[in-house]
Amino acid sequence: MSEFKTVRGMRDLLNEDAQMLRQVEANARKVAELYGFKEIITPIVESYELLSAKAGEEVRSRMFAFKDLGDRDVALRPEFTASVARLVATTLRNAPRPFRLFSVGSVYRYDEPQKGRYREFWQSNYELMGSNKPEADAEILMLTASLMEKAGLKDCAFKIGHVGVLRGIFSQEKLEDRVQNQVMQLMDKKAYSTALEMVEDAGVSNKCVEVLRKLVELKGTDVFDIAGEVKELVKDYEKAVVATENLLEILKLVSQAGKIDITVDAGFARGLEYYTGMIFEVYVPSLDIALGGGGRYDRLIELFGGDPTPAVGVAHGLDRITLALRLQKATLETEKEKRIMVIPVQETMRGEALKISQMLRDADLVVEVEVMGRKMTKALEDANRREMDCAIIVGERELKEGAVVIRDLKRREQSTVKIEKLVKTIKE
Amino acid sequence: MSEFKTVRGMRDLLNEDAQMLRQVEANARKVAELYGFKEIITPIVESYELLSAKAGEEVRSRMFAFKDLGDRDVALRPEFTASVARLVATTLRNAPRPFRLFSVGSVYRYDEPQKGRYREFWQSNYELMGSNKPEADAEILMLTASLMEKAGLKDCAFKIGHVGVLRGIFSQEKLEDRVQNQVMQLMDKKAYSTALEMVEDAGVSNKCVEVLRKLVELKGTDVFDIAGEVKELVKDYEKAVVATENLLEILKLVSQAGKIDITVDAGFARGLEYYTGMIFEVYVPSLDIALGGGGRYDRLIELFGGDPTPAVGVAHGLDRITLALRLQKATLETEKEKRIMVIPVQETMRGEALKISQMLRDADLVVEVEVMGRKMTKALEDANRREMDCAIIVGERELKEGAVVIRDLKRREQSTVKIEKLVKTIKE
Repeated sequence: MSEFKTVRGMRDLLNEDAQMLRQVEANARKVAELYGFKEIITPIVESYELLSAKAGEEVRSRMFAFKDLGDRDVALRPEFTASVARLVATTLRNAPRPFRLFSVGSVYRYDEPQKGRYREFWQSNYELMGSNKPEADAEILMLTASLMEKAGLKDCAFKIGHVGVLRGIFSQEKLEDRVQNQVMQLMDKKAYSTALEMVEDAGVSNKCVEVLRKLVELKGTDVFDIAGEVKELVKDYEKAVVATENLLEILKLVSQAGKIDITVDAGFARGLEYYTGMIFEVYVPSLDIALGGGGRYDRLIELFGGDPTPAVGVAHGLDRITLALRLQKATLETEKEKRIMVIPVQETMRGEALKISQMLRDADLVVEVEVMGRKMTKALEDANRREMDCAIIVGERELKEGAVVIRDLKRREQSTVKIEKLVKTIKE
Repeated sequence: MSEFKTVRGMRDLLNEDAQMLRQVEANARKVAELYGFKEIITPIVESYELLSAKAGEEVRSRMFAFKDLGDRDVALRPEFTASVARLVATTLRNAPRPFRLFSVGSVYRYDEPQKGRYREFWQSNYELMGSNKPEADAEILMLTASLMEKAGLKDCAFKIGHVGVLRGIFSQEKLEDRVQNQVMQLMDKKAYSTALEMVEDAGVSNKCVEVLRKLVELKGTDVFDIAGEVKELVKDYEKAVVATENLLEILKLVSQAGKIDITVDAGFARGLEYYTGMIFEVYVPSLDIALGGGGRYDRLIELFGGDPTPAVGVAHGLDRITLALRLQKATLETEKEKRIMVIPVQETMRGEALKISQMLRDADLVVEVEVMGRKMTKALEDANRREMDCAIIVGERELKEGAVVIRDLKRREQSTVKIEKLVKTIKE
């Protein structure tokens, strides 16, 4: 047995798994097109400095980082946004706003492997840059719902929050950025009591602790009620009120545009540090990991040295969507195409068999040629085992008459057909 | 200005470059389907041991190799064949032969960057495993011709050789494997006189040197004549004669199956050590780098610990094909789709604008929504500048009547249309 295997956390995708991932990728590309997002292809290997600049400690510590042969500090991208930000801060600097940019490919994080979590995984990534308006946020939410629908997923539900609510309270309470980031990370892990302790220890007002304690409990699907309660609760924190109003506007636009199942969660935070506004994740009932997530990050492009460019974006986990589709017993979209086996009767017929197979492929038919040098019976057995639809048998006798034998492998019937009528006969 | 840039040897693909690469990828996938090749997706990160096992010194020394956080020696794949061989030696070990396996994605080599040569590049890779017959070799050549044709490339020409001719002479002359590999590498670089010196120094017969000297000069498009001359020249070397006969059979099958422009080159060698039979590369006149290449490697799967499995395969450089298409002034296949801009007249109309845009996308129309909060004139200017086809203007007055204004941006005409008739009007 071979001693070679995949590296821990990496895996091969075969058969339906590979096909379904490619199908979801095609769905993602189609959605990008319908929403006017242009595809960009950025490298998987980027400078460590770029990828670590705003990733947050958790992502940074789990990057595949190394030195290339030129002694450059590089890493495999853990997500797409840093690369897109680089492009917007450089090549696209003077292009007119807004940008709608789409990427798809594999990303890399050294996580503990588990169901739905690998060290190489696939994302589709959409960034809408240049607009600070709530309709841009709404578009990203709608686009995500469109992708889930196109992929064939049922019962998708969104969880939405707004980083500006907590950040607004924290900044008015003069909490240091470093502490704020730590608190947000704890909240992302739902370690609310530890987070509250940390805030208390930092010396905030009693009122603040009280507000936060109630805030992290506020969640539900009556989104306007919940958001209204949040607004009332944070009324003494000016920036938090503005953030809540922004969230309300986004929710209103989304609900006007179509039906999306949404839960507002006031204690919701996300791992990446660069978010500044609305944040969200999307789930299905059968899987407790998010299929996608994103939000608004209005200062990122500046931090990368570009012009101030408000932005909102989302990344979808394509292999997680594939997994969710498998759990929902979704089937592949592919129409059942006829599969044809071309078999030369004698060795001398091999060239003719290749020629005929090429003619069939030119007519868009899926054709395999017998290349094992097997006898007819063996070759037909193999074609049957592999559930092919028909066999074209190329023999010397028929060929003299410009004909071949076509055998329907399902009905077990066969007939002789002139080569010029072969395509038509098969397609009937 | 941002200090961030792509790592040396890596690049971004934007606009038509990205679209064309994706189009060539789609062509490659279509060809795989027509020939019955199943897609497999293997990791970009593999164990260093696997990737270096049979790569040859030249490829090995230019790998992106590093240790992961678990101290494993890993590398970024420099090609696909090692991963496919791993799969065939393990997961697919007991599956019935033949396999037709297709992969597509990026590969990594630390080469000196130049035109058409980057450190991250894209390949489509096809392996036909299980058959040692010349029709399998012919299929791989035909498949390559099909891809070039489907991609829209003109004037493709194949260069074909056979590793077995030189190896047959060398082994009968008892030349060590190590020296053989070095000589083949020199020949790959067309350093024929250095290669001949090395063979002479290794103490082969005078006849051998004479034969080799003539052999490396033998090339031309009269393929049967050239192959005939090779056969006559090497007649005292039994294995070399068998190899030449094999090459003749492959050439005969290919010429029977269709028209392919071929040069036989008896002094042709390829960088990878694992080839055992026919080898080939494909070129277009405007570019002096190969767009694809491959050959037969009958012992590789065994060397990876699997069962003996003869195999023949090819890898195509998708970004080089893209470059060649650009040089041939090929255009993108995309049918010109109508592009629509939806603009709310007042802020209160934003939700309705989103709803209408969603209705249009459900009808498969490409729609962008004005998300910059611009006044109508500015938004229309932008839509014109970006050469969009029409604008849907959502205003309060028309909406009360269940209608919107549709403006043809090319003809500069506009009219009021009921929302339920909008899709039909646009598609007309």
